Amino acid sequence: MQKKIEVGVLGATGMVGQHFVKFLQNHPWFELTWVGASERSTARKYRGATSWRLDGVMPEPVGELTVEECKPGNAPRLLFSAMDAVVATDIERAFAAAGHLVVSNSKNHRMERDVPLLVPEINAAHLKLIPQQRQRGWKGAIVTNPNCTTVVLAMALAPFKQFGIRRVLMTSMQAISGAGYPGVPGPDINANIIPFIGGEEEKVEQETQKILGELAGDHIAPLEARVSAHCNRVPVTDGHTESVSVELAGKPAAEEILAAIRVFRGLPQERGLPSAPAQPVIYMEEPNRPQPRRDVERERGMAVFVGRLRPCPVLDWKFVAMGHNTVRGAAGAAVLNAELMLSEGLLEP
Amino acid sequence: MQKKIEVGVLGATGMVGQHFVKFLQNHPWFELTWVGASERSTARKYRGATSWRLDGVMPEPVGELTVEECKPGNAPRLLFSAMDAVVATDIERAFAAAGHLVVSNSKNHRMERDVPLLVPEINAAHLKLIPQQRQRGWKGAIVTNPNCTTVVLAMALAPFKQFGIRRVLMTSMQAISGAGYPGVPGPDINANIIPFIGGEEEKVEQETQKILGELAGDHIAPLEARVSAHCNRVPVTDGHTESVSVELAGKPAAEEILAAIRVFRGLPQERGLPSAPAQPVIYMEEPNRPQPRRDVERERGMAVFVGRLRPCPVLDWKFVAMGHNTVRGAAGAAVLNAELMLSEGLLEP
Amino acid sequence: MQKKIEVGVLGATGMVGQHFVKFLQNHPWFELTWVGASERSTARKYRGATSWRLDGVMPEPVGELTVEECKPGNAPRLLFSAMDAVVATDIERAFAAAGHLVVSNSKNHRMERDVPLLVPEINAAHLKLIPQQRQRGWKGAIVTNPNCTTVVLAMALAPFKQFGIRRVLMTSMQAISGAGYPGVPGPDINANIIPFIGGEEEKVEQETQKILGELAGDHIAPLEARVSAHCNRVPVTDGHTESVSVELAGKPAAEEILAAIRVFRGLPQERGLPSAPAQPVIYMEEPNRPQPRRDVERERGMAVFVGRLRPCPVLDWKFVAMGHNTVRGAAGAAVLNAELMLSEGLLEP
Amino acid sequence: MQKKIEVGVLGATGMVGQHFVKFLQNHPWFELTWVGASERSTARKYRGATSWRLDGVMPEPVGELTVEECKPGNAPRLLFSAMDAVVATDIERAFAAAGHLVVSNSKNHRMERDVPLLVPEINAAHLKLIPQQRQRGWKGAIVTNPNCTTVVLAMALAPFKQFGIRRVLMTSMQAISGAGYPGVPGPDINANIIPFIGGEEEKVEQETQKILGELAGDHIAPLEARVSAHCNRVPVTDGHTESVSVELAGKPAAEEILAAIRVFRGLPQERGLPSAPAQPVIYMEEPNRPQPRRDVERERGMAVFVGRLRPCPVLDWKFVAMGHNTVRGAAGAAVLNAELMLSEGLLEP
Repeated sequence: MQKKIEVGVLGATGMVGQHFVKFLQNHPWFELTWVGASERSTARKYRGATSWRLDGVMPEPVGELTVEECKPGNAPRLLFSAMDAVVATDIERAFAAAGHLVVSNSKNHRMERDVPLLVPEINAAHLKLIPQQRQRGWKGAIVTNPNCTTVVLAMALAPFKQFGIRRVLMTSMQAISGAGYPGVPGPDINANIIPFIGGEEEKVEQETQKILGELAGDHIAPLEARVSAHCNRVPVTDGHTESVSVELAGKPAAEEILAAIRVFRGLPQERGLPSAPAQPVIYMEEPNRPQPRRDVERERGMAVFVGRLRPCPVLDWKFVAMGHNTVRGAAGAAVLNAELMLSEGLLEP
Repeated sequence: MQKKIEVGVLGATGMVGQHFVKFLQNHPWFELTWVGASERSTARKYRGATSWRLDGVMPEPVGELTVEECKPGNAPRLLFSAMDAVVATDIERAFAAAGHLVVSNSKNHRMERDVPLLVPEINAAHLKLIPQQRQRGWKGAIVTNPNCTTVVLAMALAPFKQFGIRRVLMTSMQAISGAGYPGVPGPDINANIIPFIGGEEEKVEQETQKILGELAGDHIAPLEARVSAHCNRVPVTDGHTESVSVELAGKPAAEEILAAIRVFRGLPQERGLPSAPAQPVIYMEEPNRPQPRRDVERERGMAVFVGRLRPCPVLDWKFVAMGHNTVRGAAGAAVLNAELMLSEGLLEP
Repeated sequence: MQKKIEVGVLGATGMVGQHFVKFLQNHPWFELTWVGASERSTARKYRGATSWRLDGVMPEPVGELTVEECKPGNAPRLLFSAMDAVVATDIERAFAAAGHLVVSNSKNHRMERDVPLLVPEINAAHLKLIPQQRQRGWKGAIVTNPNCTTVVLAMALAPFKQFGIRRVLMTSMQAISGAGYPGVPGPDINANIIPFIGGEEEKVEQETQKILGELAGDHIAPLEARVSAHCNRVPVTDGHTESVSVELAGKPAAEEILAAIRVFRGLPQERGLPSAPAQPVIYMEEPNRPQPRRDVERERGMAVFVGRLRPCPVLDWKFVAMGHNTVRGAAGAAVLNAELMLSEGLLEP
Repeated sequence: MQKKIEVGVLGATGMVGQHFVKFLQNHPWFELTWVGASERSTARKYRGATSWRLDGVMPEPVGELTVEECKPGNAPRLLFSAMDAVVATDIERAFAAAGHLVVSNSKNHRMERDVPLLVPEINAAHLKLIPQQRQRGWKGAIVTNPNCTTVVLAMALAPFKQFGIRRVLMTSMQAISGAGYPGVPGPDINANIIPFIGGEEEKVEQETQKILGELAGDHIAPLEARVSAHCNRVPVTDGHTESVSVELAGKPAAEEILAAIRVFRGLPQERGLPSAPAQPVIYMEEPNRPQPRRDVERERGMAVFVGRLRPCPVLDWKFVAMGHNTVRGAAGAAVLNAELMLSEGLLEP
């Protein structure tokens, strides 16, 4: 692993693309050498083609890259996709067909039968779907990560899976950064709540079942649990907070659940993947934590924080979960996916 | 009803007291002529004893009132209590014993067996508990209104009651004003969520059952429904927003529920009580409403707004509710209680 | 004044147009019977053509009006213009040419030599410019109100004028609503300051001089004072706050200035115009006021609040001023202008 | 410099104390081995005695320290003072008398004639005041850093000093964290501006003159410039933003000023002190920067950011400045002071 692997970002000038550029900065395995965007930006320097919207300043060397068209050709084999959903389907498929490994944050292929919806700590086995994609005539493959709200819920639920998850009711309080740029208008969100995020509840309900499901031959058998989501936008900068109630088939005591959270680890931890948090789900003992502004930057945004586990009078247990929506919920998730794939030998031609 | 009825406020200099002073301004039936507070403030002008914390300025004539001790004596018969919970029990009882009608916003007596936890549109019949209070040797009485989070939930659920409420799961996003003054520290709540409000979840769970319960001889038989609350503080000025899922014994269609909400009325509407909203629960058709900042001041803060009714994959239906926590959830609630009591003839000696 | 005067709004579906619709609701003199907007909206009901963005709900009767093209024809003589600056020049001129009185909130004509930049309490005499507009061949006229930041400064400075204003240095902290809709992106302004508002500083500097200037024959001789503005956007919903330092030729004592503020009145007050605040500039004694969230709705948003007058080590005096940017700074300003014109007999054909 | 120097924090459990604890984490020269606080906390573990209010979690090893009384005795020679102003005078003097070097963030001694008000990039020469303190009978010394608003202004002005600063007019928009904990009540600051911060304007005006002043024998001759400050609290988490106008005796062109900013360096940069930013004042070219939320964490909070240099119609130039109020404005400032003192040999007995 001496020489870094060259990687590219599809849709690099947009908000999600910028999160990839930032997250990949100083990555020990990957080096960002290729940025693709829409025609309007091609042939310009990344610096000139991009209105940098993230905190801090644009990483220097990336600014000097020339923006390329999002067409297979001279791009590296490993590509992160930050494509807008409107165009992601065709472009991601074209790259996969041409032999690229497309590690995508876009929603377009998440629920496709032959595409892993990967959370490395939870369902590394889902990578075994990839060979199915050959039937599409692809020489490469597409792997996806979940929606930013889903991943916080799925990670928080993962330690509960052993107790038999039957029903999940989740209300989210989602940060402004989750809606991109310009995203939520200032006049709408200042000191206000918007109790609606288009398509979000459906995504959370479906994706959670797939993520926590089991590989069943050539597809994923979704978790047989009912999941209901209420999604709200709140005036928070980064970090989605979720109030969760869960019904379990087994009737574990609080100590068993807490122990399950504390010991929960996955392949990223076993293998020490560079973007893996030491502990993927961290339980906070303080009665009023986690809080997005105070906890979102811990563990470089890659862990999910859980607190306030207590009995629920309606389902069995209730708790609060919080995670970084643009890191663990987007760029960081995809990069961790690529790290897992590399460690599985899937990046070799 | 020519001459106005004199009323007083116990705990008038505090934040809740100020809400009473503001809400009673220009009231057609009641005239605030007496303000009581702790010893520190007595014998001073209300203006001098009070740091006015509400928007706008202190109503002129109240500023000239002299603050009295919170002891029975020269106070009017009808008193609104904004007492801090630490002292409310003894003081409210002393006034009730001495023949006063104490219409209290404090939590202390809400769950007492012989005290109505009154929401006039829902449970006017609970006023029939009052004679039970004679057994305490009181010449007067205590009547309470619910916690500010509870009342939004209870009002929103009231039209569902006919369908047999079995289970309710509610996540609140509560405004800063609900915590009084100085209340939530600025460094805690700026661009943040605090997923804990001490004692709030228990209050919501218990009070909702009592409010929606039925008079059963000498007490209230609580609604036999399981209620679970997740309570969160959010950076919103006024207005508690609640994501609610509900399971119903009857299996009504959406249209039946919407019709039930639209026709829902109570005694305050029938009798045209001055603080009654024309329609107590207002369903908003817009897909992203109600919103606290945009809707909280409608109907003078006395209605509860509901929106986004849709099937819940876990319970039967889910929706969002929002109401004004310091009006319908505090001062306005108590004043409406007093109006109902007056219209019932309960203010006559 | 029995029958109300019919009025129209140019650009009625936009954000400023909505402020006009709201402010004109229940106006005692004017009745909104005509709404104009861009082609896209014409022939539709106002309700259907407009995404209502203001707090509360759209006034009922206006919702039923049919949106008309912004071309002279069947519009009432008196029109309020909420046109976007990109199109306002031609459209306002076409209406003025056709005999309409265009009372405009747009910036386009404010600095034109023959157009009054009217603040009725300050410069009613500037209406005498109107006959100059005949030289353009117009049968009607255009009258403008200032930029929302300017008006707060100009009103606050008006009582100082008698002392000889020499230099003014102002830093604004401007509410989000000042940028319209969608306006400032949520990710930019949440818990942040944006120290730049395009074109704003220049407007404040020039407009203030014209407003406080004197009619000199056929034009306005601007106030010979140097004005410098720093304009910032802050996460406040409504109300522009301004830190002001001023140098005066006369060297008045604090008491003289305070007295000047307190007695300051103009024609709107003398004549009791319906939208006139009883006192146009209100001095607040509290050491930490005015504050936008707490004071912006007082006096129906039509007064300007001043506080903290104290010596300035650099210029002579410093103070803070605050006013409602979408009321006194836009719709309310224009309506007061029209009321003044009506009281001057300028609305008669 | 192999073995780290042991240091202590006076007032370690408070908010400023916590900032010291956080900033000293992993410091290459200093090791925090001693924490002092009021009697209430002594003899307890720091972890148990402290309600940790900062983002993230308390540094592990510090949690295990036992809190000591703030009395000379077993404390290390070098102490950082985060004492509350109410008690700082006596305690800091007692430690200085006993031979400690007290590097204080408290305001108490800042304006004392024999105490340096140190900003290492600007006035390292002021350290020559220290020997004057011997006349108080002290074996040690007190050195102070400025108020958090002052330091941003002083740093931004430092490159202007060569052009002859005559007058400075500054309006601040200060973050909530500047007021400590619980500090500004949430109901006061949510979506609001508070145009008053007690004592702040006086501090800024006086301290700026002393910082930019010259050593004149046994005291500092303050900069002969008039300074006026308007101080406002805004709903921002960290980072004070300042709108500044400045009059200069020399009449430099913009390019000369920009060049002066860009080349500005001090002893911390020359000597590569560990907490020194590479460039102390960074000019941002973007038209709408610096912004607190986006820029405050750059350069580990130790640089001051300047932007929007443009002519001022009243004084000569105007610009915006922004810096981290709890880092460069408090803990980081004091630590840099200590680093400078160490590099000057002042820590040797």
